[in-house]
Amino acid sequence: MTHTERLAAYLGELAYADLPASVVSRTEELFLDWLGSALASDGSHPTPLFHAYAQTMGPREGRARVLVAPYGTSPYFAALVNGAASHLVEQDDLHNSSVLHPATVVFSAALAAAQDLGKSGQELIVAAVAGYEAGIRIGEFLGRSHYRIFHTTATVGTLAAAVAVGKLLGFDREQFIQVLGNAGTQAAGLWEFLRDAADSKQLHTAKAAGDGLLAAYLTAQGLTGARNILEGEQGMAAGLSSDADARRLSDRLGQRWALLETSFKFHASCRHTHPAADALLDLMQRECLAPDDIARVTARVHQGALDVLGRVDVPRTVHQAKFSMGTVLGLIAVHGKAQLGEFANSALNDPAVAAFRARVGMRLDPEVDAAYPQRWLGRVEVTTRQGAVLQGRIDEPKGDPGNTLDRAELEDKFRRLVAFAGKRPPAEAEALIAQAWRLHECVDLYCFT
Amino acid sequence: MTHTERLAAYLGELAYADLPASVVSRTEELFLDWLGSALASDGSHPTPLFHAYAQTMGPREGRARVLVAPYGTSPYFAALVNGAASHLVEQDDLHNSSVLHPATVVFSAALAAAQDLGKSGQELIVAAVAGYEAGIRIGEFLGRSHYRIFHTTATVGTLAAAVAVGKLLGFDREQFIQVLGNAGTQAAGLWEFLRDAADSKQLHTAKAAGDGLLAAYLTAQGLTGARNILEGEQGMAAGLSSDADARRLSDRLGQRWALLETSFKFHASCRHTHPAADALLDLMQRECLAPDDIARVTARVHQGALDVLGRVDVPRTVHQAKFSMGTVLGLIAVHGKAQLGEFANSALNDPAVAAFRARVGMRLDPEVDAAYPQRWLGRVEVTTRQGAVLQGRIDEPKGDPGNTLDRAELEDKFRRLVAFAGKRPPAEAEALIAQAWRLHECVDLYCFT
Repeated sequence: MTHTERLAAYLGELAYADLPASVVSRTEELFLDWLGSALASDGSHPTPLFHAYAQTMGPREGRARVLVAPYGTSPYFAALVNGAASHLVEQDDLHNSSVLHPATVVFSAALAAAQDLGKSGQELIVAAVAGYEAGIRIGEFLGRSHYRIFHTTATVGTLAAAVAVGKLLGFDREQFIQVLGNAGTQAAGLWEFLRDAADSKQLHTAKAAGDGLLAAYLTAQGLTGARNILEGEQGMAAGLSSDADARRLSDRLGQRWALLETSFKFHASCRHTHPAADALLDLMQRECLAPDDIARVTARVHQGALDVLGRVDVPRTVHQAKFSMGTVLGLIAVHGKAQLGEFANSALNDPAVAAFRARVGMRLDPEVDAAYPQRWLGRVEVTTRQGAVLQGRIDEPKGDPGNTLDRAELEDKFRRLVAFAGKRPPAEAEALIAQAWRLHECVDLYCFT
Repeated sequence: MTHTERLAAYLGELAYADLPASVVSRTEELFLDWLGSALASDGSHPTPLFHAYAQTMGPREGRARVLVAPYGTSPYFAALVNGAASHLVEQDDLHNSSVLHPATVVFSAALAAAQDLGKSGQELIVAAVAGYEAGIRIGEFLGRSHYRIFHTTATVGTLAAAVAVGKLLGFDREQFIQVLGNAGTQAAGLWEFLRDAADSKQLHTAKAAGDGLLAAYLTAQGLTGARNILEGEQGMAAGLSSDADARRLSDRLGQRWALLETSFKFHASCRHTHPAADALLDLMQRECLAPDDIARVTARVHQGALDVLGRVDVPRTVHQAKFSMGTVLGLIAVHGKAQLGEFANSALNDPAVAAFRARVGMRLDPEVDAAYPQRWLGRVEVTTRQGAVLQGRIDEPKGDPGNTLDRAELEDKFRRLVAFAGKRPPAEAEALIAQAWRLHECVDLYCFT
């Protein structure tokens, strides 16, 4: 058996009864976190463009729901628009060692398909778990070389979404082999857009969710795909990676729950900025430093951070600011946090933040780089106005599994996300929270609208 | 100016008045050839799967037409279904040096958009020319290394389709830069499926046409894309090629009409089999050989032929047979031709063809490989039952620009293609031929339905 076949067999057999209570409960938390990320982008560019596109190209009615402009359509367009929406505000989850944002692709596709197919909360949960377990392992399989050029959430996300929808469609081992082929041959997404702060990140997650769903629905109808799209000589590893390791595909299936390793995002910025942000905050609190006490900050980072964050010096948009280490550390130093409100109000035109940004640099750190991507270590070197050189360090950023957000913190985050868009009253946010915590009991999923 | 910017400027300025009469006329011929390729697949697996998918996911009405099951829908779904349909019977055109099948992606997207937008035949022609000129140059730019792993018609096809639709949407230089970014970051399609003879070739052309159209419509609404998706450090060349040559992107823009270099397919098989097929036919006619006079044939081929054709020994499906050098040469030897009828009736179960297939081999030929992909040389070595060793050679396969099909031959081919599906009466085929030859005068394109 190839590793792909082992993975497909596992996915075919996975049942709700196999899930530990901690996995069910964490899936509900990841779902709420995803829902908030989607709702927060209601009205923010480019979400309305995808919504308008769906109206132009898709049907005006259907059982699947577009969350950011509540109406029903076919599941392809619900997945597409929700996929675009839920990655925009940079608050959706991340799995460290795969460098995959699973929720934005898995839940966007799975909720749309579950609503279309009339599935229950338990069926959605097991589908999401399948998508996380497969997507995370495929991301790890493709390795660091892949992430240097390709946006893993776009490429691998297509397969993760396809697996989740395939589970809802009741796929067996053979169909999971086929759907990986049909999704893998559609996998795309390049980092080149970062240089221009273009809108491609939303296009990537929209397309990953939509294309994964397309792959699953066509596979269900009998469209055949390559049987070895991951490991084969003309497959994903051959074309899109130089350090692929096939053993990662079947790593401890059934024993390791990769979903539980997923991190919640606390700061509303690119995850590559979080370790340094937490290290700086910790150091400033410990040493009682004010922003103006600091002459220079060097964030000591892994190579992936340089690849993704190194393209822009002075951000021109809020979204760009989320990929600016200087801006993020400036918000942390000046405001003590870097959440949606700080980005909206202070990232671009707060002189204190801009002044701090100019004092921030990044440097590759061998220890941090060696630990990555399994561990995202935070290391900052601060030089004070008085000339002292201080070291800040944290080993587990806020939101990581060992330093996670509890349900109360997740509820707070969700309320902030919904309030940020300003489109839904607080009572609606409370109702959605209550429904998410009852997800495992939901008979159908039409309450998520 | 980058080469990409030069290409974008050219595309923005290209006007119908710039087109030589030969380009207009050849575009009409390529269009008819594409239309026949699409109609021929009506009812053949997997075309109905895409049609059913469009009915599930898309609107049931619209100005764009699905050709294989005549009804109107939104242009995305028309492009998707027509893209799947028009590459299935392996009769659509090919550009040699880019190894791109332009029609299946360019016309599928452009006709759908032109019908949606109410454009004229002249507007469709200039859009198609833009798609061919850009797509061919981008295919050449990505080089041979790209084609070893990636199906160029899928990857580059996404950009070619996007450019054609962008032209219909009236894009200027800046918008062409953006649309290349939005299409290029979606470019996908791996050859791995060949090993299993899976249905991915149709998925690839469907998605390239659909995704290219999606890129153009979203760009028109303001979705921004990477400005240097082709040449940039995290762009297509960086991720998908090891021998990219940026100069090819702007090669003789306005002087060289790459569209005129496109070959029509005469045999109904993978183009990589055509040079050897023509060389064998020529040799057998010259030497008056019957199939049973031949003990052994070695097709001396370029590496690309080995990569694409080398996966299957004994074909199990008609589509697989089109990628089997032994089957194609068997049909040529036994029946004197390898068109749709021969494939349907004799490729799988004619004992004479099967016996001949077992006597065919392939070998890499340095001369043939050095000329490829600019020239597709045909070389076969035949050993007779009497032990004589004979060489067959042709330098320009039937259908190549210097050995092209004239309008009468194209009409014959079109009639055969329509008749093969058995869904439309001969009079309808004649009407479509007449409309194609009047394409440059068409006020609208609703007659192509």
